[in-house]
Amino acid sequence: MSAEIGLGFLGLGTVGSAVVRTVSERTGFLERQIGRSFQVRRALIRDPNRKRDVPLDESQLTVNVDDVLNDETIEVVVELMGGVEPANTYIRRALESGKHVVTANKEVMATHGIELLELATAQGRDLYFEASVGGGIPVIGPFRQDLAANQIREVHAIINGTTNYILTEMASGGVDFEAALADAQRLGYAEPDPTNDIEGIDAAYKLVILASLAFNCAVSPEDVYREGITRISAADFRYAAELGYGIKLLAIAKRAPNGFEARVHPALIQRDVLLAQVDGVFNAVLLDGDLLGRALFIGRGAGPEPTSSAIVADLIDLGHNIRRAVHDRIPMSLDGDLCVLPMPEVRSRYYFRLWAKDQPGVLASIGTVCGEHAISIASVIQKEVDENAGRAELVFLTHEAQEAAVQGALSAIADLDVVASVASVIRVEDLAE
Amino acid sequence: MSAEIGLGFLGLGTVGSAVVRTVSERTGFLERQIGRSFQVRRALIRDPNRKRDVPLDESQLTVNVDDVLNDETIEVVVELMGGVEPANTYIRRALESGKHVVTANKEVMATHGIELLELATAQGRDLYFEASVGGGIPVIGPFRQDLAANQIREVHAIINGTTNYILTEMASGGVDFEAALADAQRLGYAEPDPTNDIEGIDAAYKLVILASLAFNCAVSPEDVYREGITRISAADFRYAAELGYGIKLLAIAKRAPNGFEARVHPALIQRDVLLAQVDGVFNAVLLDGDLLGRALFIGRGAGPEPTSSAIVADLIDLGHNIRRAVHDRIPMSLDGDLCVLPMPEVRSRYYFRLWAKDQPGVLASIGTVCGEHAISIASVIQKEVDENAGRAELVFLTHEAQEAAVQGALSAIADLDVVASVASVIRVEDLAE
Repeated sequence: MSAEIGLGFLGLGTVGSAVVRTVSERTGFLERQIGRSFQVRRALIRDPNRKRDVPLDESQLTVNVDDVLNDETIEVVVELMGGVEPANTYIRRALESGKHVVTANKEVMATHGIELLELATAQGRDLYFEASVGGGIPVIGPFRQDLAANQIREVHAIINGTTNYILTEMASGGVDFEAALADAQRLGYAEPDPTNDIEGIDAAYKLVILASLAFNCAVSPEDVYREGITRISAADFRYAAELGYGIKLLAIAKRAPNGFEARVHPALIQRDVLLAQVDGVFNAVLLDGDLLGRALFIGRGAGPEPTSSAIVADLIDLGHNIRRAVHDRIPMSLDGDLCVLPMPEVRSRYYFRLWAKDQPGVLASIGTVCGEHAISIASVIQKEVDENAGRAELVFLTHEAQEAAVQGALSAIADLDVVASVASVIRVEDLAE
Repeated sequence: MSAEIGLGFLGLGTVGSAVVRTVSERTGFLERQIGRSFQVRRALIRDPNRKRDVPLDESQLTVNVDDVLNDETIEVVVELMGGVEPANTYIRRALESGKHVVTANKEVMATHGIELLELATAQGRDLYFEASVGGGIPVIGPFRQDLAANQIREVHAIINGTTNYILTEMASGGVDFEAALADAQRLGYAEPDPTNDIEGIDAAYKLVILASLAFNCAVSPEDVYREGITRISAADFRYAAELGYGIKLLAIAKRAPNGFEARVHPALIQRDVLLAQVDGVFNAVLLDGDLLGRALFIGRGAGPEPTSSAIVADLIDLGHNIRRAVHDRIPMSLDGDLCVLPMPEVRSRYYFRLWAKDQPGVLASIGTVCGEHAISIASVIQKEVDENAGRAELVFLTHEAQEAAVQGALSAIADLDVVASVASVIRVEDLAE
């Protein structure tokens, strides 16, 4: 056994560089924990001209993936490329050639996670992925180990820092979505093309991983209902606050009688619930287990240092396994008999805001439509009146109703003569104790 | 290898009974995870006449510890007796006779934890103790695994549910300590003899365990500075709220230049920091790691179900180890070169409240004493004036100062002719981002 565990990197951007620095700077610290240190052998890079702040020789950088995957001195491959391909193929090749893999890749884990974990088991190797969800917050570890005695009933998570930053700005600054997005882009919290974040795509990938772990079943990204934050306006934040709510982009997985719900969408949550107060780029996972009850984990969900906290923790755990010559210590156990509930069957409370003619009988008409769809209204507020256009803005909060019924009612309401437009519809998650 | 892992219990109170029910009711669930199920063989009880809601035959209960420790069909001993002795001796005997141990015993782990972990290593056995701190909240696991890449800088924890319940009642109800304690006793949240909780003894044991894990060093309960909540009054909550603070009993471990601080005492914390809003019987651990930054874990810190969530998680993890024939996978690694800073050297901000003569020059006298002790006052409020007695109540908030200087100043202030009494002194922890 060599005194060092050889590492190969696939991808050496800001996160990869932070990981390389961390394992280099903490040699003694890591040796005390696992009895051996890590040695970075080779790193696959895309752009040889990019300047990198890493303690590596130029000769250790390569643009040829075979230099990493065929290097027999590399025991562990750290995959930080992102995106499904070629990362998926490279992880597969690494496992097939007898290497362990640590990845931060949510897209790969959400789309090919179960088959890759099965491959790792078959190969007698380990595949770690703590950094794929929640950045540095321990999430995968707790689900697989610390919470393993529980039947998980619900997970409500804020797992996209970009959208949480934007929503926090909208809530505190009273600004509209476009202004908050521009601000986030200026500060580097949002990408030039922000689609993956603001449309909930990133959160949906992470939810797939969380839901698989919570319910021990195969979930695919297509199973997840997904709605982004682009249609929320400053007015919605004002009304929500007046009603005692905040607005967050939530990733929700919830056990239901014949399966489970898996959905990503903006939601009103009571302002005095701690999850509603997780602001800025922080992430949070609120879970409900049948033994534990509610537990909430909060921390930084992105950034090179928090992410390397998770990746190096995986490397240390792997180091313990290598030292003890054990692998695949906690195998995936799939229940297989659970499936995702179609969105129309989901039950929720709803907030909706619309513009109607400022005349008598409007509330009665809307109330009638709701009644016909078996939707009961919990409260109504009327605030803005646009005198020139003769329009009034109305906000409704419903009791729990079925998604299909609400969508039916909303389309009938939009067709009413007295209604100019349904400006927004946001689900309400009841998280009060 | 038997199809079942034999368990022996030491102690079968409410927690033990909940664990027995959990492993009995989840046979299939546990088998899917670890490939074997658990079988409870014998349980040591104290009172044979007590009625227990457990699926065990009378013949499985015993008042003789040898029936558990000498039973060769028992692979794992679950110790839930509490208290240092005889639990420590029994755990030692169990390890020596080749059994693994899962314990929820904070007293044993705080006083003999390191030697017991060393014994387990020497015996090739495992000793698990997740339930000893924070009930069901994953704490030990994250510290030993998920956060292992970090140098932990600080831990601020609310780890005693009884005192947190009492302080929450005092904050929301405006009641004094005695009334809130009586209420907690009536509801079963506080023991008839509440000393261990209200004097911070329970929290200090748990802090010893947290600090050992955070700083990889041996800490003894005597090293921990400890102050309970009995001297806090309704007035303190009123003034704290006015200044924007809440009051919590905190267990604090903080890295310092030549060692670390370890202290349990009430503290003012900014009301808009989430830790200040962890109310009732909930526990919380706020930590600061050099890679991760701040992370906060919140959940139920006591109760049979949350505690059995942690104990059964330990059993499952142990089950994985037994299945893979591995043990002592994550050994303790002690740094050894850190020691606890004496309390007089600790620096903090302070809140103090006193009654002084209602006459000119009082503030000047107090200000002079503070200045002589190098303590700078951040703000003063004067609220209550007792006209009959000619006394006024004054509240001071200081900038950071050394404990020794503050104690010196306070004793000099108490000696001033114009000062009737120093009514309370509470440290202030600055946790704003």
